[in-house]
Formats: sequence, structure tokens, C-alpha cells
Amino acid sequence: MSIRRAAVLGAGSWGTVFAKLLADAGTPEVTVWARRAELAEAIRERHVNPDYLPGMWLPEAITATGDAGEAIDGADLVVLAVPSQTLRDNLGAWAGTIGADATLVSLMKGIELGTLKRMSEVIVDTAGVEPERIAVVTGPNLALEIAAEQPAATVVACTDIRRAELVQRAISTRYLRPYTNDDVIGCELGGAVKNAIALAYGMASALGFGDNTRATLITRGLAETTRLGGALGANLMTFAGLAGLGDLVATCSSPLSRNRTFGEHLGRGETLEQAQAATRQTAEGVKSCLSIRDLAHSVGVEMPITEQVELVCHEGVDPLKALAALMSRETKPERPGVPSTSELQ
Amino acid sequence: MSIRRAAVLGAGSWGTVFAKLLADAGTPEVTVWARRAELAEAIRERHVNPDYLPGMWLPEAITATGDAGEAIDGADLVVLAVPSQTLRDNLGAWAGTIGADATLVSLMKGIELGTLKRMSEVIVDTAGVEPERIAVVTGPNLALEIAAEQPAATVVACTDIRRAELVQRAISTRYLRPYTNDDVIGCELGGAVKNAIALAYGMASALGFGDNTRATLITRGLAETTRLGGALGANLMTFAGLAGLGDLVATCSSPLSRNRTFGEHLGRGETLEQAQAATRQTAEGVKSCLSIRDLAHSVGVEMPITEQVELVCHEGVDPLKALAALMSRETKPERPGVPSTSELQ
Repeated sequence: MSIRRAAVLGAGSWGTVFAKLLADAGTPEVTVWARRAELAEAIRERHVNPDYLPGMWLPEAITATGDAGEAIDGADLVVLAVPSQTLRDNLGAWAGTIGADATLVSLMKGIELGTLKRMSEVIVDTAGVEPERIAVVTGPNLALEIAAEQPAATVVACTDIRRAELVQRAISTRYLRPYTNDDVIGCELGGAVKNAIALAYGMASALGFGDNTRATLITRGLAETTRLGGALGANLMTFAGLAGLGDLVATCSSPLSRNRTFGEHLGRGETLEQAQAATRQTAEGVKSCLSIRDLAHSVGVEMPITEQVELVCHEGVDPLKALAALMSRETKPERPGVPSTSELQ
Repeated sequence: MSIRRAAVLGAGSWGTVFAKLLADAGTPEVTVWARRAELAEAIRERHVNPDYLPGMWLPEAITATGDAGEAIDGADLVVLAVPSQTLRDNLGAWAGTIGADATLVSLMKGIELGTLKRMSEVIVDTAGVEPERIAVVTGPNLALEIAAEQPAATVVACTDIRRAELVQRAISTRYLRPYTNDDVIGCELGGAVKNAIALAYGMASALGFGDNTRATLITRGLAETTRLGGALGANLMTFAGLAGLGDLVATCSSPLSRNRTFGEHLGRGETLEQAQAATRQTAEGVKSCLSIRDLAHSVGVEMPITEQVELVCHEGVDPLKALAALMSRETKPERPGVPSTSELQ
């Protein structure tokens, strides 16, 4: 079995690169939905996405439309690649058009504000599909590097291993190697929390902290993510893999990462508004740190880095003070990744 | 209880910075042994180490000698900071002078060629001390950053928790926060294997691989380290902490890392001899990859990255071919960090 027709809903950089992946791996028809008609036209008529992938040609098998229903109609794979906090509204309008056995793929990394739900949970709520029809694709996957066909690996997580393998085949190319995993919870948490940690990493970089401090932030950041995952039923081993450690390291290390870059602006002393103006967007972690903090509180897990990031982003706390608070906690035995309510730092 | 007199055997960058740590934390007498009399004199008379820490003043409490017996005499803390592969010969000459209840600290990261022993095992062999008297200090600790008093964290591993706490107090300063751990095996393996992984990371960097690939190398590198640790009786959680992930990330990320830098030379197509000439040293991982590979074979664990690094360093394999081999293995479910004999890649 293979995918005949795929819809990619969202024409940002990762959505567009994912459409290219599907086409390069042999999917005969790939239709991208873009919110703006001009962008749909550019992709359809000129095979370019000037807004998010300037200078790159898209495969001929990709077409595009401004009408989501048209993209979804007849698709046996429906890829969701819209901003996390818009998913519920967007998918509400599309749900009725999704085929009865279509596989849904989530590329989104976030926790919904208010409901504190993971993206796959929002999909279940909104589209009324069974959880086993939803696959999450996540890992160390900076879109621009995959667009350039740099070799990379990714994780396809689905509780139905056959669907995971279907998606695995549908995106397996010379330059991307997908691994399957049945731990949807862990994979989604890894992807969501790393954005908050990357904000802290960016702040530390801009403030001149060295590689020792930054490596410590990554280590402690993964530990607090793992604790949250343990409390929410994830497989702890997921956090040691591509969807946990891998994605976290890539996001923190890369100058292409929006969250790291946004953190650097904050670290230089800019306000949230100034950083938004300078980067012309809001990094995902700025919103997610609120819902992740609330999710952690709801299960009694301490997440000191996420909490300090929230204080900097939303309470005006000075980034240097926030980082100093993280580095100056009481000495104690190290217990990395142990899912407990006691603090690790 | 606190340390009254410490000997630091070895005046390289980490040994010298460790002496500064001890002095800054309040140890009244710290004597550094330097192999070369001129270096001992520079430290003793001028409070500088021009060879390894140019431009930095050392605390007044530090003195130095070219006579190891003089440094060790009366010391209740004996810090070993010599090149890994010279430990057995050096310590053989010093063993008789070490006090009956002195605590020994190992700063060395390597596996002895031939015997395949960890450094603490070599110390037990050579100095005839009980294993519980040996503490290992390891973590994301680039010496030059700690010399600059950048905030960092480290791990003090000892099977005797009281001794671990003694060392913890002896090096706890405003800029370094030590955590205790009772898993000596895991801490030593983390420190040894990361040098081989950092060579691969350096090669990948020089060859132009992006952050996705490099984050994948870190993830897989930690997974193979964890598998080795599982087979050798380590606590798997150690690898998720500062002595595993933390040290690996710092070493791979930093331009100050010798192993990463050495890997970059190899990645640019230099031979081992050319890279040695250019860096005026041999990176630790170049030797360790041989003993780690043999250790892995002895317990039936696959370590594909370490094996490829060995092939590049010692068999003349082209680094690009070695990395391509790593990225092109058969797709399968991801099982990060699971200590088994089956391959992960």
C-alpha cells in the first residue's frame, strides 16, 4: 500500500519541504493548501515558495490551491502544518472533507493554550478521527537543511505501526531517513518543550555564556522534558532519541532556528514586542511556554527552565537574572530524567 | 571535614584549572606537579601557566614542583590529571607516596589500550587503593571557560558518597556547581566515548553537514555510549545527565574542544599525521576509539560511530564515506539508548 494523493495544509517552510519530500519519495499527487491565494498561485504556477523557501524549485508533482476542501478531497494522506494555536479553528472548518480512512500527519509542535492539549489530541477533538489514524512526524529537521537535501533522520510516531510504516515509506528519500516509534505522547512533548528550551539557549548565547553553560541548559532542559513525559505516560526512552535529544540539540545549535534566534533577541535586552518586530514573527516557544508550564503544574512536575523562560517572555524578568537563578540552585545529587515531582537542578 | 592539602598531578589546562578551583574553594595548600621543571617554576614563581593558560593569573595558594613525591607528601586529596595512556607508568612511580586515607580524584577521560580498563580501574591496579577512595570528576567542563569563571556544573562520581561530598565541597565555587553521583562506571564511559563522537562531529562539520546531521550524530553517539554502559553495568540515567549528554554536547559544540577540532582537520582530508602536525597534539579520541571499539566487541555491543571513527583514524577510510555509511543504514524502529547487542542505526 502506498499513498496516491496527499494534501499538505499549510505552506510555511516545513509544510512546503514536507510536500517536496512526499513528491521526491514518489507520491503521484501532492496538493499544498496556502492561506493566501498569491502564495498558492506561486507554488502552482511557478513551482516556488518565495515567502518561505526563496530560491528553491519545487518538484513538478506539487500543485497548490487556496481552497482547503479541494486539497483534501480524495487525499489518503492529510498533512497538518498550520500554526499550533490556529489548528482547532482551521481543522474545524475542514474536518468533514477528510476521507474515512485517510491517515493524518501532524507536523505541528506545540501545546494548545487553555486546553493544554497536544496537537494530536486537538486533531482527535476537532476532526473526530480515531487516535490511531494520526501520525506525528518530528525530529532534528530544520526545514531549510532538508530543503537543501542535507542527510537527516526523523521519527514517525503512531500508535498503529502499519500507518507509521505507511508514512515512513511515503517520506523515505535519499536524504531523509525516517524511523518509526509508537510513543506519540513522548514525541509530541519533545517537539513542544524544545522550543521553550531553545529560547533559554538563545538568551544564554546572546548574554555571552559559554558552551559549558549552554550544554548544561540542554541537559537540564531534556531532563525536565523527560520528567513531564514520565508524568504524562510517555516512554522515557523517546527523550533520548531523535524526537527528544535530537530535535533539542538541532534547534538549540542552529542559527536557522526561530526559537533560538528569538531568544537571542530577548537576551540582548529587547522586549517581547521589539523581538517580534525584529524577527517579524512570534516564536512558537513564546506561547508554548505558558501552556507547558500549566501542563507541568497540573501534574506536579517542576520545569525550572520553562518557568524562567515564561517569566522573561511574559513577566518582564531580566534574562540574566533568570539564567542566574537557574545556575545557582542548591547543590544536590544529580538525578537526570527521573520523572518525579522533586526538582533536579 | 575538609581538604587541607591537595596535590594536582599534571599541569595541562584542566589540571591547572582544577588547582585554581581548589584554591578558590578554600583549600589552604595546592601543589601542582608539572613534568617539565620550567613549567613548575613558572607556576610557582610567577603564578602563570604560559603553556596551557596563557594570560591568566593563578591564585596565591597554588605552588608547583617538578617532584611528584614532594607534591603528594601529606596530601589528603591527590588529583590525577596526566594523559590517559601515561597513567599506569606515572602512577606506578608515585603509588607508594600516597597517604593511607587520601582521596584520589581522576580527571582523565579514556580507556587504556590493551587492558581496556577505565582510568579508575587503572588507579586501583597501580596504586593498590580501594575503589571507594577514587572519585571521578567529569561533565561539560571546557577548561578555558571554567578558567574564565563562566558558570558551569560538573559531576563528582564515587561509590563512597561521603568522599563524593568531600570533593563536592572542595571544588564548589561561585562559578562551578558540582553534583554527586555514585555511578563511576557510567561517568567514566561518558567521558571517554564522547571524545570519539566529537571526532565524528568535527569531521561532519568540516564536510559541510548541517545541524540536522550533527544533532543526529550526537543522538546516536549518546545511544551507542548508553548501550555500552548498559552492558558494563552503568546506570543508564547517567548518560542523560551532565557526565553523558552534557559533556558530549559541550565537547561537540565548542571550538575549544581538541577532539572536535582534530576531527575537523581529518574532515578536510588531512591524514592523521598532518592533523597531528597542525594541532601539535593527538586528540584523546584518536587513541580511545581503538580501546572503546575493542571494549564494545568484548561485550557484544555495536558502536557504529566509534567504529567509523576508528576506520578514518587508523585505516585510512575517507571521512565522507564513513559518514555516508552511518547515514545510510537500513530503516527500522528507533530504539534509543536500549542496551542491547542489536544495532540502533
